Amino acid sequence: MDTLARMTEGVDGFWAVVPAGGAGTRLWPLSRASAPKFLHDLTGDGRSLLQTTADRLAPLAGDRMLVVTGRPHAAAVREQLPDLPESAVVSEPSPRDSMAAIGLAAAMIERVDPDAVMGSFAADHVITDPDAFREVVRTATAAAREGWLVTIGIEPTHPSTGFGYIRPGADLDGVQGVRLVEEFVEKPDAATAGEYVAAGYRWNAGMFVARPSVLLDLLADSDPDFARALREIAADPSSLEHRWDELPKIAIDHAVAEPAAAAGRVAVVPGSFGWDDIGDFASLKTLLREPAGGLTVLGDAAHVQAVDASGLVVPSGDRVIAVVGLEDVVVVDTGDAILVTTTERAQDVKAIVAELKESGRAHLT
Amino acid sequence: MDTLARMTEGVDGFWAVVPAGGAGTRLWPLSRASAPKFLHDLTGDGRSLLQTTADRLAPLAGDRMLVVTGRPHAAAVREQLPDLPESAVVSEPSPRDSMAAIGLAAAMIERVDPDAVMGSFAADHVITDPDAFREVVRTATAAAREGWLVTIGIEPTHPSTGFGYIRPGADLDGVQGVRLVEEFVEKPDAATAGEYVAAGYRWNAGMFVARPSVLLDLLADSDPDFARALREIAADPSSLEHRWDELPKIAIDHAVAEPAAAAGRVAVVPGSFGWDDIGDFASLKTLLREPAGGLTVLGDAAHVQAVDASGLVVPSGDRVIAVVGLEDVVVVDTGDAILVTTTERAQDVKAIVAELKESGRAHLT
Repeated sequence: MDTLARMTEGVDGFWAVVPAGGAGTRLWPLSRASAPKFLHDLTGDGRSLLQTTADRLAPLAGDRMLVVTGRPHAAAVREQLPDLPESAVVSEPSPRDSMAAIGLAAAMIERVDPDAVMGSFAADHVITDPDAFREVVRTATAAAREGWLVTIGIEPTHPSTGFGYIRPGADLDGVQGVRLVEEFVEKPDAATAGEYVAAGYRWNAGMFVARPSVLLDLLADSDPDFARALREIAADPSSLEHRWDELPKIAIDHAVAEPAAAAGRVAVVPGSFGWDDIGDFASLKTLLREPAGGLTVLGDAAHVQAVDASGLVVPSGDRVIAVVGLEDVVVVDTGDAILVTTTERAQDVKAIVAELKESGRAHLT
Repeated sequence: MDTLARMTEGVDGFWAVVPAGGAGTRLWPLSRASAPKFLHDLTGDGRSLLQTTADRLAPLAGDRMLVVTGRPHAAAVREQLPDLPESAVVSEPSPRDSMAAIGLAAAMIERVDPDAVMGSFAADHVITDPDAFREVVRTATAAAREGWLVTIGIEPTHPSTGFGYIRPGADLDGVQGVRLVEEFVEKPDAATAGEYVAAGYRWNAGMFVARPSVLLDLLADSDPDFARALREIAADPSSLEHRWDELPKIAIDHAVAEPAAAAGRVAVVPGSFGWDDIGDFASLKTLLREPAGGLTVLGDAAHVQAVDASGLVVPSGDRVIAVVGLEDVVVVDTGDAILVTTTERAQDVKAIVAELKESGRAHLT
């Protein structure tokens, strides 16, 4: 904890927590269990999603940043973020879902900086207007200081069926631009998504801003053993190894956010800064913003030769990829696998990953 | 010529000539200038098209076989046909089209076996009923002995626009099942192809059977210098190197077959033995005879993982190829290139080859 104790310089007392997990199955074969999507440059700007996330948060948090990741990825995270101190990369002995990861970070921060406000932001999301993002986080931080669990509600650009939604309620007294959260709702069908958007619901991007003690106390309301275990591990990091597996495997949404919303303890700051979680290749193509009808290349376009083709091609750089006469096609070449699909069927890539596992080729997933 | 002189054992005095040329551009990236389609196993039976051609002809010709190929491929041809004597592989110093290749073989055979009948059959065609093929060649050989230039007219299975046609005329006196050729006609448009099929025209598969002296004398009728040069090269093989480039670059169809047909010198034997020249990947898929609606794999099916897909996949064996949600797709993976197209657009693969050449990547073609 010595290094953490030295990491308290900078403005605002704001700490950034970056859970770096998730396999990104629908982005196979780019994203693998061994190299999940946060480690990849999916925007072609030379920085991985993790690096861009850290870049985006640095002006808010300075070096008050914790990345929580699975043990197999800790070395890669440290390599990609060489300026982070060793202790800022928290290595989970096994995957225990988001509550354990974010809760452990909260407990660690609570010990070294009792007045802190922390914000948790996934390592594999894309935000096209980072200035607007930071402005929203500043507003959320102000509300979090007042004791709220604050989430950021993304203004929908279309009635997506791929995200959960947030139903906003009344304006909060005393903090401009912040509203109460009535409830979090699961991913809807298309008709319901349309109703949600018309009714002013927001996308749930899984971003939470709160004082660490508020977060842990809310957890203690529903599961006091869980909250106590996290605080004990933070007090004795050497116990992480043998105590980690006793922690419940549960998402922070279910463990804290939903019950806290029901109790009137959650606030939402609306945000509109070009957000996407790059759930599949169709979403990736949209993000890359190529002219409609064209062929988008993520990688070296010199490796792609196309005739009457549109869609997304991701060359590995070793082989030429030729596409003739296909609309909205997706072609991804990596060293050991080739995916051919369409933007329309991009969600079904996860079926391939499942089949590879079933057929004894989990090493490719 | 000593080895050739020893190669006169066997039945019939029938010599097989196998021109092994042609780039197979529409089968890129399988077929390359450096490894044309005749060197590849395109049927998945473990033998290249060249080897299968030699296998098919061996019962007719024994070791009376000449393969005429480009210098860059002579070593590969010898490697694939190790039982052929060294002198049976004729290496062309440069590509001079089919008249020079077949005419040189004729002149070589004429010297060692004046009573021979030769049949010329491309190295990269597929025949599904070799017994029926050989029966047809025996009939053609009988007619060729009488002095005819004999071609084999394939019974059309559909009104193809991809082949030239043969218009048969009256039955020949004295040789059962053989007809005069009225004319050879070029590849037709779809409407004309329908008329040709209805009128009993046959596909021109470029197969010619004749006595070598008949073939050369027919050539001499239109181009005496050409015929003389071929005979002089055959008499002094050491002159091949410096005289080859003086030979006209012309197809045997134009140099001999068409003028001979106009002169009433060409006969046709009808054939129905499952013939294809595998002009493109659509033709290759049809040839592989997989159940309709399924995904055909040429290669190791263990490398292909598909969900809701039909078409043709050719894995290289090094990478897994996953296809999701595409009908009639064609995916070909080689060491250095990947092609993605549809069976409908298979003819347009040649455009990719042209573009690769234009963009300075001829080494991939």
